[in-house]
Amino acid sequence: MSIASTAQIHPTAQVAGDAEVGHFAVIGADVEIGGGAVIGHHVVIHDGSRVGASVRVDDHAVIGKRPMRSLRSATTSAAEIGPAVVGEGSLIGTGAVVYRGATLGARVLVADYATVRERVTVGDETIVGRGVAIENDTTVGARCKLETNAYLTAYSTVEDDVFVAPGVLTSNDDYIGRTEARKAAFAGPTIRQGARLGVGAVVLPGREVEAEAVVGAGAVLTGTAPGGRVSVGVPARDVRAVAPEQLRENGG
Amino acid sequence: MSIASTAQIHPTAQVAGDAEVGHFAVIGADVEIGGGAVIGHHVVIHDGSRVGASVRVDDHAVIGKRPMRSLRSATTSAAEIGPAVVGEGSLIGTGAVVYRGATLGARVLVADYATVRERVTVGDETIVGRGVAIENDTTVGARCKLETNAYLTAYSTVEDDVFVAPGVLTSNDDYIGRTEARKAAFAGPTIRQGARLGVGAVVLPGREVEAEAVVGAGAVLTGTAPGGRVSVGVPARDVRAVAPEQLRENGG
Amino acid sequence: MSIASTAQIHPTAQVAGDAEVGHFAVIGADVEIGGGAVIGHHVVIHDGSRVGASVRVDDHAVIGKRPMRSLRSATTSAAEIGPAVVGEGSLIGTGAVVYRGATLGARVLVADYATVRERVTVGDETIVGRGVAIENDTTVGARCKLETNAYLTAYSTVEDDVFVAPGVLTSNDDYIGRTEARKAAFAGPTIRQGARLGVGAVVLPGREVEAEAVVGAGAVLTGTAPGGRVSVGVPARDVRAVAPEQLRENGG
Repeated sequence: MSIASTAQIHPTAQVAGDAEVGHFAVIGADVEIGGGAVIGHHVVIHDGSRVGASVRVDDHAVIGKRPMRSLRSATTSAAEIGPAVVGEGSLIGTGAVVYRGATLGARVLVADYATVRERVTVGDETIVGRGVAIENDTTVGARCKLETNAYLTAYSTVEDDVFVAPGVLTSNDDYIGRTEARKAAFAGPTIRQGARLGVGAVVLPGREVEAEAVVGAGAVLTGTAPGGRVSVGVPARDVRAVAPEQLRENGG
Repeated sequence: MSIASTAQIHPTAQVAGDAEVGHFAVIGADVEIGGGAVIGHHVVIHDGSRVGASVRVDDHAVIGKRPMRSLRSATTSAAEIGPAVVGEGSLIGTGAVVYRGATLGARVLVADYATVRERVTVGDETIVGRGVAIENDTTVGARCKLETNAYLTAYSTVEDDVFVAPGVLTSNDDYIGRTEARKAAFAGPTIRQGARLGVGAVVLPGREVEAEAVVGAGAVLTGTAPGGRVSVGVPARDVRAVAPEQLRENGG
Repeated sequence: MSIASTAQIHPTAQVAGDAEVGHFAVIGADVEIGGGAVIGHHVVIHDGSRVGASVRVDDHAVIGKRPMRSLRSATTSAAEIGPAVVGEGSLIGTGAVVYRGATLGARVLVADYATVRERVTVGDETIVGRGVAIENDTTVGARCKLETNAYLTAYSTVEDDVFVAPGVLTSNDDYIGRTEARKAAFAGPTIRQGARLGVGAVVLPGREVEAEAVVGAGAVLTGTAPGGRVSVGVPARDVRAVAPEQLRENGG
C-alpha cells in the first residue's frame, strides 16, 4: 500500500516516510508514527498517540481511546491522562484497543481484541493474549505471557516473567460492590516475579502470588500462594514444591 | 468533527444538528440520532435504529444488527423484531454490538466489545462491562453491574441492583444440547433484586439467586441461593448470612 | 446496496455479479467471492481469500489475516500457509477474524468476535459461538456447537457432534510455560464424537474426553473422561452413565 489515498490523516500528524497506512485509517492530530510502521485498514489512532518504529497495527485497532466515564463507575478518576505510547517493534492485533494513558514497551504483542486501559504500563516483550483485558491502573512487567481471555482487574501488579494461563480471573473488591468502605479497600492481586497461574484459576482481591509460585488449573486462591510452591484446589492449598527444573534460577 | 464528510448518511436518517459523526460512519435509512450525540469513526447504525440525545458511540460499534440465523440454532425464532433503541445519555463502547430488538434505558454503559442481542431490555444506569454477552430474550434491570466478560445466557432474568462479577457464567440447557425435550425446558437463571455473584461463579440452568444473596467466587450453583445468605463452593453451599452493612436496606 | 461505491476492491478480485458489498469494505488481490454473498460494511478480505456462494459476512469482520509473529510465541511456526477458505452458506459475524490458513466448511456459523487461527479446519454446519477462540493447528468436526467464549487451545482435536458449553477452557502445556521440554510435549485436548462439556469446565493438556462422555459444569478434568459417562467435580470424577435418551445412538 504505502499511504492509502482513502486514509484520513490530520495535517499535524507526523507519519514517517516509509510507514504504510491502510484504507480508511483515521490518524488524529499530533500523532507520531515511526519508520517502518505498518498500519492496517480501518485503524483509528487518536490525537497525540505515539507509535514507535517498526510497529504493526492490524485492521480495526484503536489507539488512544479516551476513557468512558459512567456516573456509577467505582474506579475511574477524572485526572488528566497522557497520550497512548506504543514502543518500537510492538504488534497490535485486529480490533485491539489501547487507551490514552497506556504505555507499552518495546516488542510487546497485544493480540486481537485485547484491551489495555488508561494508566497501564506493560514491559518489554510481554505478550497480551487475544481478548485479554488489562484494566486501569495496572502494572505488568517484562517478558510476561497473559494468555487468551485472561482478566487483570484494576489496580493489579504483575512483575516480570509471569505466566497467566487462558481464562484466569482476578478481582479487586472484597465487598462485591457494596458499602462506601469498599472504595478505600479496592486492591488488585500482586503477582510476583516468575509466578504462574494455571488455566481458569481465580485470584481473590488483594491476594499475593509469591515469586515462582504456581496456582493450579481451576484453583480459587483465597489466601497467599507461597513462593516456589504449587497451590491447587477450591479453595487453593499448598501441595508441593515447584519442580526444580521449572525454576528460572535453574534455567526453567 | 461535527459531521465528517466521509460519513455515509442515508437521506432519510434524522441526525440532530448538533450531533457529531466520525469518519467513515455508516448511518442507515430512518435512523434517528438525538441532540448532542457523538458518533465515532467507522460506527455502523443500521436502518431504523433510534439513538437518544447525548449518547456517545465509540469507534467501530454497531447498532441495529440483524440476528444471524443458523439452521441449527436452538433459541432464535423468526418473529419480527423492532429497531434497536439506545436511551439518552448512554455510552456505547468500541466495537460494542447492539442488535435490532434490543432496548437500552437511559445512561446505560455498554463497554468495549460487549454484545446485546435481540429482545433484550436493559434498565437505566446499568453497566454492561467490557466483553459481556447478553443473549437474546433476556431482561436486565436498572442499576446493575455486569462486569468484564460476564455471560448471560438466553432467557435470563436479572432484576434491579444486581452485581455480576467478572467472568461469571450462566447456562440454560440442563440437557446440554441433546433431545428435543430440552427445547421446551430451556431456562436461564433468575437473579433477584440486589443479588451478587462473585468472580468466576457458574450458575446452572433455571436456578434462582434470591434477593440480596451472594454466590461466592468460583462457586458452582446447582440449587437455589437463599436470600440474604452467602453460598460458596463446588457445588455451592449456604455458609452464612450476608453482613448486615452490605444489605441495601441498611444503605449498603 | 449491491456494491457500494465506497468499497475498495482490488482489480484482480473476482466478485460474483449478484454479490453485495457494503460501504468501506476492502477486498484484496485475487479474492474470490461467490454468488449471492453479502459482505457488510468495513469488512476486510485479504489477498487470496475464497468466500463461497451465499456467505454472509457481517460488519468489521476480517478474513485472511496473516498471523502475527512474536519473538516469544511458543507455537507458531514460520511455514507458508494457504488462503482462508469460507464454505458456501456460512455466516461470519461482526468483527469475526478468520486467519489465512483457516478452512471453514459449508454452512458454518462463526459468531461475533470469534477468532479462527491458521491451520484450523472446521466441519460443515458447526457453530463457533460469539467470542470463541480456536487457536492454530486445531481440527473441529462437523455439527459441533462451541458456545460463547469457549476456548480451544492450539493443537486441539474435536470430532463430530461435540458440544462445548459457554466459557469452557482448555490448555496444552503441562509445564505452564517453563523448560524447553514443554515445546515437544505441547498437546491440546482430544474431544471424541458426541462428547459434551458443561459450562465453565476446564480440560487440562492432552486429556481425552471419550465418545459420548459428559464433563459437568465447572469440572476440572485432570484425567480421561470415560465414554458415555458423566464426570463432575474438581478434580472430575466419574459419577454415572449418561442418560440413555441423551445418547446419539438413541436419537438424542
